[in-house]
Amino acid sequence: MVDIASRVYNHSWKIDPIVRSLIDTDFYKLLMCQSVFRNKPDTNVTFSLINRSKHVPLADLIDEGELREQLDHIRSLSLSRGESTWLRGNTFYGKRQMFRPDFMEWFEGMRLPPYHLERVGDQYELTFEGSWPEVMLWEIPALSVLMELRSRAVLRGMGRFELQVLYARAMTRAWEKISGLRSLDGLRLADFGTRRRHSYLWQDWCVQAAMEGLGDNFVGTSNCHIAMKRDIEAIGTNAHELPMVYAALAQDDAALARAPYDVLADWQQEHDGNLRIILPDTYGTKGFLDNAPDWLAGWTGIRIDSGDPATGAEIAINWWKSRGEDPTQKMVIFSDGLDTDKIIELHNQFAGRVRTSFGWGTLLTNDFRDLVPDNALAPFSLVCKAVEANGRATVKLSDNPNKAMGPEDEIARYKRVFGVGEQVGMEVVV
Amino acid sequence: MVDIASRVYNHSWKIDPIVRSLIDTDFYKLLMCQSVFRNKPDTNVTFSLINRSKHVPLADLIDEGELREQLDHIRSLSLSRGESTWLRGNTFYGKRQMFRPDFMEWFEGMRLPPYHLERVGDQYELTFEGSWPEVMLWEIPALSVLMELRSRAVLRGMGRFELQVLYARAMTRAWEKISGLRSLDGLRLADFGTRRRHSYLWQDWCVQAAMEGLGDNFVGTSNCHIAMKRDIEAIGTNAHELPMVYAALAQDDAALARAPYDVLADWQQEHDGNLRIILPDTYGTKGFLDNAPDWLAGWTGIRIDSGDPATGAEIAINWWKSRGEDPTQKMVIFSDGLDTDKIIELHNQFAGRVRTSFGWGTLLTNDFRDLVPDNALAPFSLVCKAVEANGRATVKLSDNPNKAMGPEDEIARYKRVFGVGEQVGMEVVV
Repeated sequence: MVDIASRVYNHSWKIDPIVRSLIDTDFYKLLMCQSVFRNKPDTNVTFSLINRSKHVPLADLIDEGELREQLDHIRSLSLSRGESTWLRGNTFYGKRQMFRPDFMEWFEGMRLPPYHLERVGDQYELTFEGSWPEVMLWEIPALSVLMELRSRAVLRGMGRFELQVLYARAMTRAWEKISGLRSLDGLRLADFGTRRRHSYLWQDWCVQAAMEGLGDNFVGTSNCHIAMKRDIEAIGTNAHELPMVYAALAQDDAALARAPYDVLADWQQEHDGNLRIILPDTYGTKGFLDNAPDWLAGWTGIRIDSGDPATGAEIAINWWKSRGEDPTQKMVIFSDGLDTDKIIELHNQFAGRVRTSFGWGTLLTNDFRDLVPDNALAPFSLVCKAVEANGRATVKLSDNPNKAMGPEDEIARYKRVFGVGEQVGMEVVV
Repeated sequence: MVDIASRVYNHSWKIDPIVRSLIDTDFYKLLMCQSVFRNKPDTNVTFSLINRSKHVPLADLIDEGELREQLDHIRSLSLSRGESTWLRGNTFYGKRQMFRPDFMEWFEGMRLPPYHLERVGDQYELTFEGSWPEVMLWEIPALSVLMELRSRAVLRGMGRFELQVLYARAMTRAWEKISGLRSLDGLRLADFGTRRRHSYLWQDWCVQAAMEGLGDNFVGTSNCHIAMKRDIEAIGTNAHELPMVYAALAQDDAALARAPYDVLADWQQEHDGNLRIILPDTYGTKGFLDNAPDWLAGWTGIRIDSGDPATGAEIAINWWKSRGEDPTQKMVIFSDGLDTDKIIELHNQFAGRVRTSFGWGTLLTNDFRDLVPDNALAPFSLVCKAVEANGRATVKLSDNPNKAMGPEDEIARYKRVFGVGEQVGMEVVV
């Protein structure tokens, strides 16, 4: 039976919105936002879209009018009553009232600030400038919109059954990947794929498939909207953005050297348990850990987000040992470029030596490689980063020099201050 | 938006019917039914279900109550006004009023006669007995019901995403098969897969996929209900049932030898063009053609339904030549155990020598091989045949001795009368 009301309602769609909610974003964005709201509310930042995959001509693929419509739609969103209730009432990592009333009140009234969009060659220049706690919330929806508009552009013109078979193939692949992880005893896996997902509906499908396929070994998703909708745990802690901005705000080299620890000192005041996860690679993992204060060794775990993951985990284990900590009580979260084989390998390699956890991103929610001609749906490396704070350029070094960003002279200065030596370059897949 | 009315209507379902319409059957059944209605209306026949795949324990898999519900539902069906209009008003092979008013009037009032169902070991004995024009219409729905109840039994208990991925895999496979035929110039392909389909919805999906994937090279379906729904051509001519019953009715060997030609003499009075297709293998192709009257050589084509298909086509071509006919003006229809590779091979082998056409059956509408554990959804060889006519056993020899049926002494008699010599046995896949 045709639901006439739905059909008629659909007729009136101006756009099919990609981002349907302000909490269609990564959970750690909200955690960080609250921290920034509390500790650095007056910082002025600029976020900028960076397409590391120059061979994908976004401005040729995506209509500027459509892009503006999607971005304007996001600016029209505000926190719904139900979303607010969920954030206020939910237990995150066993803790109630993770979001404090003053933050929630601010968030309920918040709208995303204006964007600046300009076509430059075959790419878009898309930047956001303003108050840090507001601007930072653009990152994930901006990436989701660009990724999904690119998917839609490629899919346009395909036949109905051609489309259905495309998704049939993608479903089969996703299911086979998920099934391949079933035998891993004690696996802890979460979806981290919001930012570079093929589409919202597809991410939602993958999460549900992982729920059925992995049961309790699938511990949740970074996406708050999907976590709410599917009644699962929202997962995440913090990201490079915090040390990058703190570092840019540092007045001299001594303050710069301290900045990454200042971030975590602020963080420690708010969070404990599974939220006390160190992200050590912003300015080189080795130097960060060598110079870390002892109280950091008491934290729950470390997230490895660049460089060779096994090497990163070994460094973390040795560091804990050197500080008198028992690695088997610690957690290593892998979150960089994961796919089934790598997850199996790392899970087995570190079983019994350290607790492991996996944040599976792009290759869970956007593996359409080789499913259309010219591989036109292959995921690509799009990021949206803080590039300036109070007028000063930010810098990221990471454990993979191919992921470094910032002005050259500042990169050199940071390398000196943080004692970063030789680094091994690795291909950035996604 | 939930369509409340649909949901509430669904609550009241006693069964999810497998056969939704009296014309959810093969087109040739209706053509043959009209011929029988006209020429042999008073014949009493028995049709019987025969599971050639004894390793599939139908009675263990399928609940008897469910089976009775489905069969009873079919007995409750009658021709709807729209179906009658479609049959009366449609053009079949370019001809109007294929079904005459007296037949249509009878068909509109017809209900399927009672069935006899009994469990014997791990199989069901399912027979239908009564007036030929009525009983013959049980064949296709009975097979569809058994096939789909078996599918449902295997699928029961699978998870939602497991199911979706199962169909994703089947869709991918079907699409790849269809796509593999795209490059064949002048291909004429039809769906003949009703009787051994995985399910009604799946057959409907495969037909639509073939429509999109093959365009005009997909010429139609044998299924009247799907042909009506999808607005494509209904395809078919006649089957073994006619010569089998005519032969059983023959009073002596001379009449028996004449019977297969009497069938086609009756047929010729009603049909021309694409409906004049010889099915020569009931009692051996070679003998049938050697002894055929000249007027049969004038018919449009031959359907090859057993034995090695290329050999059968060569025999047909040589026969036409021996009768002064031009094979390039004739049509060979292949309809036995086809799959993509075989279709490509036969299409290329006979291009330019004879017109070819393909009736793709089970491996179009039921290729779930190796998609579930123990290959429990593999198609199997189930038939429903006329086994008696006016109290006398029927016999089929075919060009593959593994497809022969009937009492041993009668098989010997038929072989003698029709001069059937050595035959090469071939595995019966479906």
